[in-house]
Amino acid sequence: MAQISEFLFQNDGNIVHADNHIDAETGLFLMRVEWELDGFQIPRAEIAARFAPLAERLKMQWRVHFSDAVQRIAIFASKYSHCLYDLLLRNVSGELPGSISLVISNHPDLQTVPERFGIPFHVFPIRSENKQEQEQKELELLAANQTDLIVLARYMQVLGPEFASRYPNRIINIHHSFLPAFVGSRPYHQAYDRGVKLIGATSHYVTEQLDDGPIIEQDIVRISHRDSVDDLIRKGRDLERVVLARAVHLHLGFRVLPYGRKTAIFD
Amino acid sequence: MAQISEFLFQNDGNIVHADNHIDAETGLFLMRVEWELDGFQIPRAEIAARFAPLAERLKMQWRVHFSDAVQRIAIFASKYSHCLYDLLLRNVSGELPGSISLVISNHPDLQTVPERFGIPFHVFPIRSENKQEQEQKELELLAANQTDLIVLARYMQVLGPEFASRYPNRIINIHHSFLPAFVGSRPYHQAYDRGVKLIGATSHYVTEQLDDGPIIEQDIVRISHRDSVDDLIRKGRDLERVVLARAVHLHLGFRVLPYGRKTAIFD
Amino acid sequence: MAQISEFLFQNDGNIVHADNHIDAETGLFLMRVEWELDGFQIPRAEIAARFAPLAERLKMQWRVHFSDAVQRIAIFASKYSHCLYDLLLRNVSGELPGSISLVISNHPDLQTVPERFGIPFHVFPIRSENKQEQEQKELELLAANQTDLIVLARYMQVLGPEFASRYPNRIINIHHSFLPAFVGSRPYHQAYDRGVKLIGATSHYVTEQLDDGPIIEQDIVRISHRDSVDDLIRKGRDLERVVLARAVHLHLGFRVLPYGRKTAIFD
Amino acid sequence: MAQISEFLFQNDGNIVHADNHIDAETGLFLMRVEWELDGFQIPRAEIAARFAPLAERLKMQWRVHFSDAVQRIAIFASKYSHCLYDLLLRNVSGELPGSISLVISNHPDLQTVPERFGIPFHVFPIRSENKQEQEQKELELLAANQTDLIVLARYMQVLGPEFASRYPNRIINIHHSFLPAFVGSRPYHQAYDRGVKLIGATSHYVTEQLDDGPIIEQDIVRISHRDSVDDLIRKGRDLERVVLARAVHLHLGFRVLPYGRKTAIFD
Repeated sequence: MAQISEFLFQNDGNIVHADNHIDAETGLFLMRVEWELDGFQIPRAEIAARFAPLAERLKMQWRVHFSDAVQRIAIFASKYSHCLYDLLLRNVSGELPGSISLVISNHPDLQTVPERFGIPFHVFPIRSENKQEQEQKELELLAANQTDLIVLARYMQVLGPEFASRYPNRIINIHHSFLPAFVGSRPYHQAYDRGVKLIGATSHYVTEQLDDGPIIEQDIVRISHRDSVDDLIRKGRDLERVVLARAVHLHLGFRVLPYGRKTAIFD
Repeated sequence: MAQISEFLFQNDGNIVHADNHIDAETGLFLMRVEWELDGFQIPRAEIAARFAPLAERLKMQWRVHFSDAVQRIAIFASKYSHCLYDLLLRNVSGELPGSISLVISNHPDLQTVPERFGIPFHVFPIRSENKQEQEQKELELLAANQTDLIVLARYMQVLGPEFASRYPNRIINIHHSFLPAFVGSRPYHQAYDRGVKLIGATSHYVTEQLDDGPIIEQDIVRISHRDSVDDLIRKGRDLERVVLARAVHLHLGFRVLPYGRKTAIFD
Repeated sequence: MAQISEFLFQNDGNIVHADNHIDAETGLFLMRVEWELDGFQIPRAEIAARFAPLAERLKMQWRVHFSDAVQRIAIFASKYSHCLYDLLLRNVSGELPGSISLVISNHPDLQTVPERFGIPFHVFPIRSENKQEQEQKELELLAANQTDLIVLARYMQVLGPEFASRYPNRIINIHHSFLPAFVGSRPYHQAYDRGVKLIGATSHYVTEQLDDGPIIEQDIVRISHRDSVDDLIRKGRDLERVVLARAVHLHLGFRVLPYGRKTAIFD
Repeated sequence: MAQISEFLFQNDGNIVHADNHIDAETGLFLMRVEWELDGFQIPRAEIAARFAPLAERLKMQWRVHFSDAVQRIAIFASKYSHCLYDLLLRNVSGELPGSISLVISNHPDLQTVPERFGIPFHVFPIRSENKQEQEQKELELLAANQTDLIVLARYMQVLGPEFASRYPNRIINIHHSFLPAFVGSRPYHQAYDRGVKLIGATSHYVTEQLDDGPIIEQDIVRISHRDSVDDLIRKGRDLERVVLARAVHLHLGFRVLPYGRKTAIFD
């Protein structure tokens, strides 16, 4: 912390946000520092090169991001439109620090949704026998679009392992339960059957193991015995929208630092 | 609903609370109705007998409770004092519609806690070889005390099956997670390892299957990456206290109607 | 309760939801009962006439609503699109038990928003000297459209008193604070200045007095010292959307029973 | 940040927690850093003196606290025991990083409560004509006890201005509403009359102006039309206990940094 702060101080960097975390268990030190380029002595293009020797000496893993760079987002959806719509609206109203460049689906159902906002929609129907081949095409399309972030907005397919390895900590999924409760399919039905008094939603990075990646954000809403499964689904939709949007917003602001199975959220 | 209301109306019963629930799935109709005895035409002692024919005709399962009857509560605790203390305080300040008549433990550690409030404390050390015998003695003590409700205030033993069968829906446990997540032991450690963003507590009736009985109340509190396991334990204590106390309060007010694996809460 | 239940029972009404509330302070008895028309002995068109004598005898205030009747909604908005968009999306995806028939604004800015969904948009620019005249035109348009419910989706004008008297308990407003804190303008700035640790939103029926009508729903979200006014506005948007949508949903399902300055919510 | 970190780094200080906040509006920079004394090159007694020149050069306001120093707490209470009991229990079970040394009241009612835990209880009956004189005696008692923190645990008197000036940001009050809603007396009655859907509690530092000091912590609980004023009071008690205890815990851990009318919470 001393030396990073000193590096910025020496170069007239005006810090606007700094946060850190010391993980007592692993001894890991995490730091996020955000400063203004106005008045900073090092030209934008040279910052990384000038910082590298210090980082090497301290054996840091590090990245420099520029908050004015527009990150390109690809959304995967299937048949439910609520999360997709929600993200498209935040996109059109400038709420997201990024830009949705395309929508991919395994079904044609939501065709009109992104098109209403002038966003390209691509259908890749997936069956067990063509899954690998279709996913390959999706990966090519994502690469051609210089995709920075993939958001699974209630995408009803499990992605093949190549996705997680190509986009580590850059695929965000929304699961409609407070994980680790109700892993897998039909969590609202599971919740109804168990008679819980609150339902949740969880946004997390996608890893090779289903519903097991680092959690970014969770929230819950109270329910009662009066709520049918349909009520849970309806109440859950609002939760899913908000929990997914918060995660996407945090990620795009470089406020999520994943480490091991966890995340530090520097908000 | 018509005939029960009519029964009360005909006998000048002044209803102060009425609630019901129609479980669409099972076709079950649940109703709770509370009325004043002042002005009621049927003497207290005859209410059940006078209601029985109607109940039989409607094939109801039913019970009559009197809100001025003081229910007798036995608390089981082990080594953690926070839930025990919390209930004792609510008892002494008159917050609970019931009365704690004794505290049972498998350890002597908390001896001074109930004694500070003049409540008898009984130790039944339990080892695998004497468990059945000791539990038999506990059951005798409970019966001798005319126990209406057993509260497991972080009792660290699994009760034998005879308890659940003798006190069906009359044993309340507090589990320190939002069930069904983190069943079993050390849920805060499990939660810490999983990196969840909220922790919970669940109060439920005890059945023969561990942590699986009908849920009465749940709540959560937000945590962050900064929280150590000790922080989770500390924050969880407040949650456990409140979630257990709410369940006990609801139960003592006859506001919990268990059905199947679920509860209707008529609050 | 007895006689209403009896009326339904005698006519083979299958009750699917019944709830009631006894207001201890005023002695008021509120009841909501929902039953199926399948198998009901009284034809739909005659229900009101057949129920009226009983209602008169009991001196009830009462209404019959049919859940398959599509209620017509008019939305008022100004310059913020998030609540308007949210309601339009719920409308297009069939989440609302009603239909948005028109959008009225005092500014042309949001023109494209409802038009994207094929909903007519009407601009009535309002200045102090033409306010009464413009509102008169709005009222005519609303009447011509057989409007059942008016929703103020962050409408930045105070409606004249004729609105509240023509649409009593049928105009829902969203205020971006947990009322009664931060009445009036710029509540997020007020909240920021006061240093609160949570911000809220309140949906309520509009009465002649500003921000004073019966509250339908409220919710809050935690904030911290790190949040700027812009962060409060951003976090508040999600709250406003959900709190307004919940109120509209409850109202359209006839689950809000206003009495005096309060509401009973039969959910 | 750079120079403070450097100071610790040069003296082999092992940082275990560091947090900071840049208040964009006032340009204020707040920092809290916690490090271990094991291995630190500067002896405990000399830290302040060695740090002072740097602090002076940077024009900082600063303090050094030692986490092993036991802070002495005085509690003021009147007639409600729940917050007092709660703090006493946390004290006896070692949950608080501090020690309750005495309890002061303007009524004799709660005499037995602290005495149950061996804590001295002092009664200073206050009437308008003797208020100044009695408060003077209280201040002497507090000084004689080397009081670090005063906690108003539902103390029903407004403290005279000398308290706030002698113990700036060292008197914590619990107010039973989500301030700034329902300032002053009987907030649950105010909340009931207004028909709000959630009630709150607020812990804050005491300043000369009633209920206006910097807020440390707030929380809310949902209520419904079914809840009477007594229910609000009952539900509120749990909220008050927790919100006050959290504030006391944060304060004793030196995690609250007041600035202007606000607090930064470095948790």
